Amino acid sequence: MEMDPWGSELVDYSKLFSEFGMQRMDEGGVEKAVQILNRSRLFRRGIIFAHRDFGKFIGDWENGKPIVAMSGIKPTGEFHLGSKLTADELIFMQKSFGAKIFYSVADLEAYADNGQALSESNKNAVLNVADLLALGLDPKNAHVYRQSEKKEVLRLANLFARKTTMATLKAIYGERGIAIYLSVLNQAGDILLPQLPEFGGPKSVVVPVGADQDPHIRFTRDIAQKFEEEFGFKVPCATFHKFFRSLNGETKMSKRDQMNVMTLSDDEGMLKKKIANALTGGRATAEEQKKLGGEISKCVIYELMLFHFYEDDSELKKMHEDCTGGKILCGECKKMRLEAISRWLKAHQEKKKKNITKAESMLTDD
Amino acid sequence: MEMDPWGSELVDYSKLFSEFGMQRMDEGGVEKAVQILNRSRLFRRGIIFAHRDFGKFIGDWENGKPIVAMSGIKPTGEFHLGSKLTADELIFMQKSFGAKIFYSVADLEAYADNGQALSESNKNAVLNVADLLALGLDPKNAHVYRQSEKKEVLRLANLFARKTTMATLKAIYGERGIAIYLSVLNQAGDILLPQLPEFGGPKSVVVPVGADQDPHIRFTRDIAQKFEEEFGFKVPCATFHKFFRSLNGETKMSKRDQMNVMTLSDDEGMLKKKIANALTGGRATAEEQKKLGGEISKCVIYELMLFHFYEDDSELKKMHEDCTGGKILCGECKKMRLEAISRWLKAHQEKKKKNITKAESMLTDD
Repeated sequence: MEMDPWGSELVDYSKLFSEFGMQRMDEGGVEKAVQILNRSRLFRRGIIFAHRDFGKFIGDWENGKPIVAMSGIKPTGEFHLGSKLTADELIFMQKSFGAKIFYSVADLEAYADNGQALSESNKNAVLNVADLLALGLDPKNAHVYRQSEKKEVLRLANLFARKTTMATLKAIYGERGIAIYLSVLNQAGDILLPQLPEFGGPKSVVVPVGADQDPHIRFTRDIAQKFEEEFGFKVPCATFHKFFRSLNGETKMSKRDQMNVMTLSDDEGMLKKKIANALTGGRATAEEQKKLGGEISKCVIYELMLFHFYEDDSELKKMHEDCTGGKILCGECKKMRLEAISRWLKAHQEKKKKNITKAESMLTDD
Repeated sequence: MEMDPWGSELVDYSKLFSEFGMQRMDEGGVEKAVQILNRSRLFRRGIIFAHRDFGKFIGDWENGKPIVAMSGIKPTGEFHLGSKLTADELIFMQKSFGAKIFYSVADLEAYADNGQALSESNKNAVLNVADLLALGLDPKNAHVYRQSEKKEVLRLANLFARKTTMATLKAIYGERGIAIYLSVLNQAGDILLPQLPEFGGPKSVVVPVGADQDPHIRFTRDIAQKFEEEFGFKVPCATFHKFFRSLNGETKMSKRDQMNVMTLSDDEGMLKKKIANALTGGRATAEEQKKLGGEISKCVIYELMLFHFYEDDSELKKMHEDCTGGKILCGECKKMRLEAISRWLKAHQEKKKKNITKAESMLTDD
């Protein structure tokens, strides 16, 4: 079983524990914080389903030590539901555990991987950070930066290169160009940045990622160990979430497939069109559906509400019951969910607009 | 014929014109400035013997446009005669052509290539820059920096990576680790840095290098062309000097062979020992030498005076005549040259001491 962090293949999660050594959420010390974690729909609903060493982060939190949650974005477009999911987890960590947030706008990766000019990335970066703020990020306990402006990250990448063999890079990432390998080193720099003396030294850092990003995590954990003596790095922890499917249900949601990705900037017309085309678990005929209920495990609309748009479990439960009990048909159901999502999006877009100036200043100050 | 910029093999210079397309000093527009150039012993004596596009630099100088001369050092030790030679050329360009000097302390390369910690590099950097100042660099028209602190260089390296294939790197540098390839990209960043908008935009930049460094130059010239559209880069020019032999005459002078390198920090005792052991062109017997004269082309001591320590051509001419005319034996000759070199070194070391604080502040300010 291979995992390709740049691919969009769906993965059999059960193998991740046995073959890749991820830990379950009820082990490794994480269980101690279950009550707090379950305040987040992501943990409560098993969307975040595995981790590496997250118990150490929880332990440091218990002991009042400084903790960091970090992530980043390749600024090639607007926030979509995948970027939102990671952001939601970061913001939860900030609110509920007092974690400081580090967020890297990986403009150099956008150049390496997509050839996107840094100036273009900078425009998107402002929008992305405004999304973060609108989702609830507290700018006072956060450090947001562009990779191309962060010499500490680029310097770390250079240092890490000396203890990274081509064979390792090929084994994890396949035959790639030097720009992609350099992106990998930069990303390790982003993850380990919060532990530099400039940022208060070694500490527990958790990185929320999709399960398919585990190769990056394992690579960075190896690097942290190799540079333990020099920097005192703690091995970074990670939480893993299931990834959200594309709206047609066929692959992981990706920016590369515009009509099958939902972005936080979609307007009502676009949203309507996308929901109309999204995959459901509808049966062949209305009659059959009323009799057997919908196949909800296939339904992307249900996933939308489960992952993102119903905070309240009772609303979700009702949707589930109505569907599987055959009480509602897909057309009517879609209409209801469209309304809920549309309301959420409008409110979000309002908040986002108000945060553009703040986002600009956060990116300039860094 | 292969040229290895990290090796220490001696090279047959004549092939550089036919096989590698270097230009002679009397062609390509350089001849227009011959009178000024010949004020420098390096040009006058043919130590700088070839170039690429240096005529364009001369042309821009004639037209009053901004020009830059740049170089750098891997700060793994004290200045030796090779570092001095490059520095002498830079300082000449600054004094006689008004060129602004850029000088990169390649601490990341020292880490990549030698595993030397950045803190250690920083100590050496201060000494190296103090040498530069003692040799006559005017700090007011110079920009000296450490690679690890210069985000613009590291950013350029990342951008350049995208248009650099592994095949190219392998063809020029052989199978190397990613850290070494990254050093190559950083060095291209150093060379093109002076043309960034932050430093006034595109301009003629000359890089004085040993002939064996031509692969770096050709690589960077290719990169400049690939990024011409994005940054308006002019293709950088280069001058090439013959390299100085190790004191035993066997290889290129290299820091790796401590007793065969002369550093600008050698004390009198060390200098004496090194001169005593240095290769000369002495004959088998005194009698034979008086009859046939010394084989001056083999003599490293003569090279020392030719390259470095006799500014005055008449002194050099006398040394040549006395040797080849059999008027002086190697022992007596060495004694005279030792005195001259020792005097020069002492004066230099005095000046250097007075420049330590200035060197520190130049490296901190950047």
